[in-house]
Amino acid sequence: MEGDQDDPEFQKPPAEVKYEYLDHTADVQLHSWGDDIKEAFEQVAMAMFGYMTEIEYVEMLDKQSIEAQGEDIESLLFHFLDEWLFLFSAEPFFIARKIKITEFDEENFRIKAVGYGEEFDLDKHPQGTEVKAITYSNMQVHNTEEKHEIFVIIDI
Amino acid sequence: MEGDQDDPEFQKPPAEVKYEYLDHTADVQLHSWGDDIKEAFEQVAMAMFGYMTEIEYVEMLDKQSIEAQGEDIESLLFHFLDEWLFLFSAEPFFIARKIKITEFDEENFRIKAVGYGEEFDLDKHPQGTEVKAITYSNMQVHNTEEKHEIFVIIDI
Repeated sequence: MEGDQDDPEFQKPPAEVKYEYLDHTADVQLHSWGDDIKEAFEQVAMAMFGYMTEIEYVEMLDKQSIEAQGEDIESLLFHFLDEWLFLFSAEPFFIARKIKITEFDEENFRIKAVGYGEEFDLDKHPQGTEVKAITYSNMQVHNTEEKHEIFVIIDI
Repeated sequence: MEGDQDDPEFQKPPAEVKYEYLDHTADVQLHSWGDDIKEAFEQVAMAMFGYMTEIEYVEMLDKQSIEAQGEDIESLLFHFLDEWLFLFSAEPFFIARKIKITEFDEENFRIKAVGYGEEFDLDKHPQGTEVKAITYSNMQVHNTEEKHEIFVIIDI
């Protein structure tokens, strides 16, 4: 260090603040897989909830059902995740520990699913990261004989 | 809540984890201003340091000098900030509380500047956010009679 204390700037006060922080953006890519595409869907929703809190603190005390529909597999995935995000973002502020898809209509792109969990409670559940939105950015749904996996980017 | 405990899923363990989190990206836009463009440059560098820690904890005990050069005002800004980022990222891990530009050659896009601060110390300075890189994304340097201000996005 050039610890030259003769420089008069050392004695003057720090500068007045003439700056601010704007537009913060962030995202994270979720990657899930399963023995079939249904399980990969279930897993990616659990991944999203896992980003919102430490999922080990969530007990399965209640359940919530959702239905989602799309025009193709990507929009089905979008709406499926968006339904869960909506249940978390407003009443009943529901956070799922486990998600089971009870009907997966791959022809008509419809899903019925049940989530097992409880109401989010900051006294019980560590605050994770706020999920702001699901995105279609670089969304990938792979469903072949060899692999069933999903990549989806969420805004946080 | 549909607290229907007859559902056998309540008794089964939570699902095996088949997901992971990939590629996390984030950025923030810094906005600074000043009585002249020199002050706006000083301020945007202080804004960057202010994102790395709570700047009130930084004492002016040492100083460090940098020189930066560009081919235009934007690349000068990029290199000016990059010099400070470099001083922080490796020895001497220097964090500035105040930055003074001692020479600002607007014709040849050269800057000499001095930072007043100290070595970053986690025992003394709260950990802020890691700044990964300066970017040219939507960079704006406004230098007119009416206003002297800068917008720069940094990856965090």
